Amino acid sequence: MAATNAQLLSEILDQAAQLLKKHKIDLWITFVRETMLMCDPSFPLVCPLDMVWQSAFLISRKGDRIAVVGRYDVENLKRTGAYSEIIPYDESIRPALVAAIKKVKPKRIAINTSEGDPAADGLTHGMHALLMGILSEAGFAKNVEPAEVFLNSLRGQKTLSEVARIRRAIRTTEKLYREIGKEIKTGQTEQQLARKLHERVRELNLETAWDRDLCPAVNTGPDTAIGHAGPGKLRTKRGHLLHFDFGVLQDDYCSDLQRNWYLLEQNERRPPEAVHHAWKVARDALLAGAEAMQPGARGWEVDAAARAYMIAQGFPEYMHAFGHHIGRSAHDGATVLGPRWDRYGNTPYGLLKAGNCFAIELGVFVPGRGYIYLEENVLVTESGIEWLSKPQKQLWLVN
Amino acid sequence: MAATNAQLLSEILDQAAQLLKKHKIDLWITFVRETMLMCDPSFPLVCPLDMVWQSAFLISRKGDRIAVVGRYDVENLKRTGAYSEIIPYDESIRPALVAAIKKVKPKRIAINTSEGDPAADGLTHGMHALLMGILSEAGFAKNVEPAEVFLNSLRGQKTLSEVARIRRAIRTTEKLYREIGKEIKTGQTEQQLARKLHERVRELNLETAWDRDLCPAVNTGPDTAIGHAGPGKLRTKRGHLLHFDFGVLQDDYCSDLQRNWYLLEQNERRPPEAVHHAWKVARDALLAGAEAMQPGARGWEVDAAARAYMIAQGFPEYMHAFGHHIGRSAHDGATVLGPRWDRYGNTPYGLLKAGNCFAIELGVFVPGRGYIYLEENVLVTESGIEWLSKPQKQLWLVN
Repeated sequence: MAATNAQLLSEILDQAAQLLKKHKIDLWITFVRETMLMCDPSFPLVCPLDMVWQSAFLISRKGDRIAVVGRYDVENLKRTGAYSEIIPYDESIRPALVAAIKKVKPKRIAINTSEGDPAADGLTHGMHALLMGILSEAGFAKNVEPAEVFLNSLRGQKTLSEVARIRRAIRTTEKLYREIGKEIKTGQTEQQLARKLHERVRELNLETAWDRDLCPAVNTGPDTAIGHAGPGKLRTKRGHLLHFDFGVLQDDYCSDLQRNWYLLEQNERRPPEAVHHAWKVARDALLAGAEAMQPGARGWEVDAAARAYMIAQGFPEYMHAFGHHIGRSAHDGATVLGPRWDRYGNTPYGLLKAGNCFAIELGVFVPGRGYIYLEENVLVTESGIEWLSKPQKQLWLVN
Repeated sequence: MAATNAQLLSEILDQAAQLLKKHKIDLWITFVRETMLMCDPSFPLVCPLDMVWQSAFLISRKGDRIAVVGRYDVENLKRTGAYSEIIPYDESIRPALVAAIKKVKPKRIAINTSEGDPAADGLTHGMHALLMGILSEAGFAKNVEPAEVFLNSLRGQKTLSEVARIRRAIRTTEKLYREIGKEIKTGQTEQQLARKLHERVRELNLETAWDRDLCPAVNTGPDTAIGHAGPGKLRTKRGHLLHFDFGVLQDDYCSDLQRNWYLLEQNERRPPEAVHHAWKVARDALLAGAEAMQPGARGWEVDAAARAYMIAQGFPEYMHAFGHHIGRSAHDGATVLGPRWDRYGNTPYGLLKAGNCFAIELGVFVPGRGYIYLEENVLVTESGIEWLSKPQKQLWLVN
């Protein structure tokens, strides 16, 4: 059975209180406004409904759960049952928020800013200035620090209900892959294939895990545009590879899986050797990375294991990270299983922890044939990983 | 016919170049990453697709349209045809972005920060630090200012295609209101009525204009929770008012309209005097505000006209703003037609301009009966306003 949204919220807020203790942070403040215009990725962790006016959510190490919100937002928030104190305001949030902070007397205050982790960087520059003004008025401006490390744990270590939701999104995705697999034949455009998946997603009343123009990505043959490109007008053809990158958003959680087919020539029984070899190397590189995943490993170490395998086999290294968190978003922030490149900031230096859910992926181009790209979803356990998806063990063949 | 997304993007980027000239800004930079996790409200104005890695969009006064993006995002962006230069990178955005800025040699650089306007405050605090580091490296850190005023114009002065899209969303909303009006009878719960609208929105393959849990808001009778509350279990009843707040998102643009019914008692032919009087005062107050709307008026002046009318009639003043922009979001930022309260920051001091699309709204509680709340959508013209919605002129009656 699915946990209700209220149960899930309460589970996450309990986890937040525990992590505040662990990180010795006295108060975590999420400060938002007009969340339907732009939403701090941390906001859904503290509130399941959009807020219109400036709103502050204060979770303290001692167990306080205080919300200071516009009067018209009070009723919705009460219904969640998650807050011990809901303070309404009309003209200005300042007096109530200053008073609430003074009451908690926090020595260390964490706010949602981070240079490296997009999921922990939800406070806008303007709202940061407003919040610092308020904290200054309360006399606590010096006590502020980025919530980055705390949020990495809170967002990254999924609760049981969160993992259950991710599993369901994966099951649905695998089902849709099985369905589409039965419909693949020569002469279909990438766009036609994408449309079929969109129809099924709509029938199930779900959403795609990312921008529907790019989800699924569908790539057929060697001339297709790879990367984050949308499906084009190229047609499936015998002797070519066909690759999908797809996921669904179900009950607020995402899957992110890639699958590969090869369309046999009329006289073929199995893929050509070059295709088979590329598949095997990519698959073994994925396993080499998976092998390196366990609590305490650093993100870049996992990436390096897979990357080294590719290079040792004489294949080019993939120009992206080996893995990323999945959760409320298909790219869920926190530790990246990626190389220590500038654009990843400090995120490859994070430690893997039990409860992390990752998408792991890599692939290779086969000249004249197309792309092979593998992506599976895994859960970090106390001793290694559990495969959340049923890994694709061989290329699927179309006659 | 609807303008394509590519046409609309090009229209908006042309407008941006004109406004940069007008405001004497040399370069406008939108700097984003992982836009599916959190999206700068200005980002859809410069790019119609999600970006994964750090990406910079540079629009210059001289007509440059430069995008510096991760290699895998290049192909999608090329397809839009909107950029004169697309610079890919792999490991770090810095060298390419530094070079691009140096080439433009901007004296004044506008970036997306604002304390008052949520729609102009899209740069996160962490991304602000990264961008300032890059600008510093390029030697242009001192040339930076908030894009607030420029963005207020760009986002607020709708192009013809944008107004056409808003009109279509309004037409759809009015159609759905007519349909639901035929189905209203006693004994329906607020949630049942909301469900009917959700079904229709789904059939039309649209989305609600804001969080579907709160869109529509449905309020029946005097015990209902008003404000931004979701529909509850209260049932429609003779002698009670029934109020909806609803809009749709169609082709990326929103409507936002409120409508009111009165359920006649079995012996009634018209609403009771108190209900009728409240309706008349609210309606005339809305018109008083609309009357004050013209280019050059300040937001707070419009609000004050409506507010003063309510107070002069002995009615309580509404505890919110009279009007807000509509566009890509139902609350579209920029100038607010609201009182000079702290929580609105400087937004009520903005000037109305031709091309602005506003939702204007106010209402009143009728003891023992429920809520009357009016909301219409209007376009500011050179000489005043054009009603985009067909205003509700009298309470709609249910027998």
